Amino acid sequence: MLELRLVQGSLLKKVLESIKELVNDANFDCSSTGFSLQAMDSSHVALVALLLRSEGFEHYRCDRNLSMGMNLNNMAKMLKCAGNDDIITIKADDGSDTVTFMFESPTQDKISDFEMKLMDIDSEHLGIPEAEYDAIVRMPSAEFARICKDLSSIGDTVVISVTKEGVKFSTKGDIGAANIVCRQNTTVDKPDDATVIEMKEPVSLQFALRYMNSFTKATPLSSTVTISLSNELPVVVEYKIAEMGYVRFYLAPKIEEDDEETKPEV
Amino acid sequence: MLELRLVQGSLLKKVLESIKELVNDANFDCSSTGFSLQAMDSSHVALVALLLRSEGFEHYRCDRNLSMGMNLNNMAKMLKCAGNDDIITIKADDGSDTVTFMFESPTQDKISDFEMKLMDIDSEHLGIPEAEYDAIVRMPSAEFARICKDLSSIGDTVVISVTKEGVKFSTKGDIGAANIVCRQNTTVDKPDDATVIEMKEPVSLQFALRYMNSFTKATPLSSTVTISLSNELPVVVEYKIAEMGYVRFYLAPKIEEDDEETKPEV
Amino acid sequence: MLELRLVQGSLLKKVLESIKELVNDANFDCSSTGFSLQAMDSSHVALVALLLRSEGFEHYRCDRNLSMGMNLNNMAKMLKCAGNDDIITIKADDGSDTVTFMFESPTQDKISDFEMKLMDIDSEHLGIPEAEYDAIVRMPSAEFARICKDLSSIGDTVVISVTKEGVKFSTKGDIGAANIVCRQNTTVDKPDDATVIEMKEPVSLQFALRYMNSFTKATPLSSTVTISLSNELPVVVEYKIAEMGYVRFYLAPKIEEDDEETKPEV
Repeated sequence: MLELRLVQGSLLKKVLESIKELVNDANFDCSSTGFSLQAMDSSHVALVALLLRSEGFEHYRCDRNLSMGMNLNNMAKMLKCAGNDDIITIKADDGSDTVTFMFESPTQDKISDFEMKLMDIDSEHLGIPEAEYDAIVRMPSAEFARICKDLSSIGDTVVISVTKEGVKFSTKGDIGAANIVCRQNTTVDKPDDATVIEMKEPVSLQFALRYMNSFTKATPLSSTVTISLSNELPVVVEYKIAEMGYVRFYLAPKIEEDDEETKPEV
Repeated sequence: MLELRLVQGSLLKKVLESIKELVNDANFDCSSTGFSLQAMDSSHVALVALLLRSEGFEHYRCDRNLSMGMNLNNMAKMLKCAGNDDIITIKADDGSDTVTFMFESPTQDKISDFEMKLMDIDSEHLGIPEAEYDAIVRMPSAEFARICKDLSSIGDTVVISVTKEGVKFSTKGDIGAANIVCRQNTTVDKPDDATVIEMKEPVSLQFALRYMNSFTKATPLSSTVTISLSNELPVVVEYKIAEMGYVRFYLAPKIEEDDEETKPEV
Repeated sequence: MLELRLVQGSLLKKVLESIKELVNDANFDCSSTGFSLQAMDSSHVALVALLLRSEGFEHYRCDRNLSMGMNLNNMAKMLKCAGNDDIITIKADDGSDTVTFMFESPTQDKISDFEMKLMDIDSEHLGIPEAEYDAIVRMPSAEFARICKDLSSIGDTVVISVTKEGVKFSTKGDIGAANIVCRQNTTVDKPDDATVIEMKEPVSLQFALRYMNSFTKATPLSSTVTISLSNELPVVVEYKIAEMGYVRFYLAPKIEEDDEETKPEV
């Protein structure tokens, strides 16, 4: 039996909104340590990894490891019916082919339960090795989202270049070219407004803006985003979920200046 | 001659927005007691009844009973041109084939008059007998609107079940099933936030969500909605208009679990 | 070499938003006195004239007169990438076929440069003679925009009639007719809320609402609009840009009550 009670139910709503554009169907994996998901996007280019640790739930009961295949659009439809202040409980009986989402309003005057059919989904769980990165940029997530959106009005790809001074986002298109430089600035009023760069050596890598823009759907989850870059690895775009875990997106760089997208080697 | 002056003109704007989706053309009936409308929706399934009592108008002159056929979409277009703080006056000369809507800004610096052609509309005025209902639910109108909208993302029909403890809204669809229970709660801070149930015997009736969602267009008219249910009668969904009257929607229950809509027997 | 630094960069964003619907491609003319544009709309019915005087820029360097052909939609796309509080600098080298827009965030932590290709555009610069007008109406720009939008839901053309008492906007259409009268009111709390009429003789002229609605895209530039009318001249709809200049729109009256649009004789 599975029963996971999350007081800040809006987190789960935001998680679904952040990944449902990339992934149609996926297995959610429950174990004693947490509630997680790992899935390739539907064109098999980007990888999504979600973790919500058991400690973050008010109540977490998972008697045995369980993998539940869900259609993320349908799940998002149901979670949209939860109020932003509702407590959400995820329930499943052993061997059941359904999962139930229960929403309790803060006053307990309104109780909803939404039952969804589970699916059988074939998936291989990829091992994602821990890696050392040449450069790690932490910056305000809204700023990163704005930059990806702005550059999309000019071109299709973004070159992310990191030096000690800052991070540069560049693109080119039919109507012209654009460079946006964010300087390292650690002396800001609010820590979350800082742009912080940890760098071993300069990197300059090119990515499809379409995917970057999908990743930024996770912006409501966290006020900062961390971008980890290495010449031989997929970029990791990470949104931390306060005290619970993270949503991470992996995307392989584009090797050449053509429009072919290469698959990530994770 | 007809001259009806309504200081809170935004009420009339909201009334039109609440019924124009259901009804295309209808007769507005003016008498010494008030300004009213009764009309079936265009598919002849739901019935709308509006009453604005003469006492609610600042000035109310209606020399003889008058029935004015109007296209509600065109009327709504004109009323949209009134500011939210404008005073609205409805004027018609005896025997005229036009009606004039006059809008006065609060400062009297802007005066608009919109003249609309009247139409000949055949309509039979149905007598709606006063009835006793098995169960009457009063609840916040925004909550009812939210529930109808949420359930529409799962299914096409809603079963409304009333017991002494509360009211349950249920639906089923391809992706799953949903139940939303609102408990009777009379000890709330604001009286309009209460859910109050008057019940003689439990009822459980099924309705098309499409119509329920149309009815909730009247939500801006009132902070509460009253739902009156009986096993042998159409449901009445009523939005009171403060100190003036009401908009009431009547809809016959669906008898069987198929998709055929039955006509109300009012 | 050209280098124009505008601290209130949002002004330039608003200018582009106000004219890009009317004009596709146009030459921006730079001289020691200012940055200007004059262009017919794509159907050659309305004329747009923009002036940003050199005094309004924090830094203004224009070594020799320069005419830069730009696609206004592309320019608007790039300016949309500037933050509302950004400083915008327009740069061009002599003989270059590109122009660069540089955006600096208030904290200087984010610097963007957008390079756009210039175009060769044939254009004749029309002399617009200074004229005396029969009637000049100054009114709140939001009110004028609201009136044009409201009347568009009823008809295609607007008759603007000015008397000493006020200005009347009238239209007619299939569903009826509308008159909106704004009285002269100079005793208001805020000067920008006033409707002020300077009149030599009454005028009554008819215009296409489609163009009037396009002109009102300039509403965010100024809280007031000035409408200058004469029987034998195109109307001038002017939005002043504080301490810098203006955007002016010229449109010839419709002579007859048919749907043909006559070209302005400016």
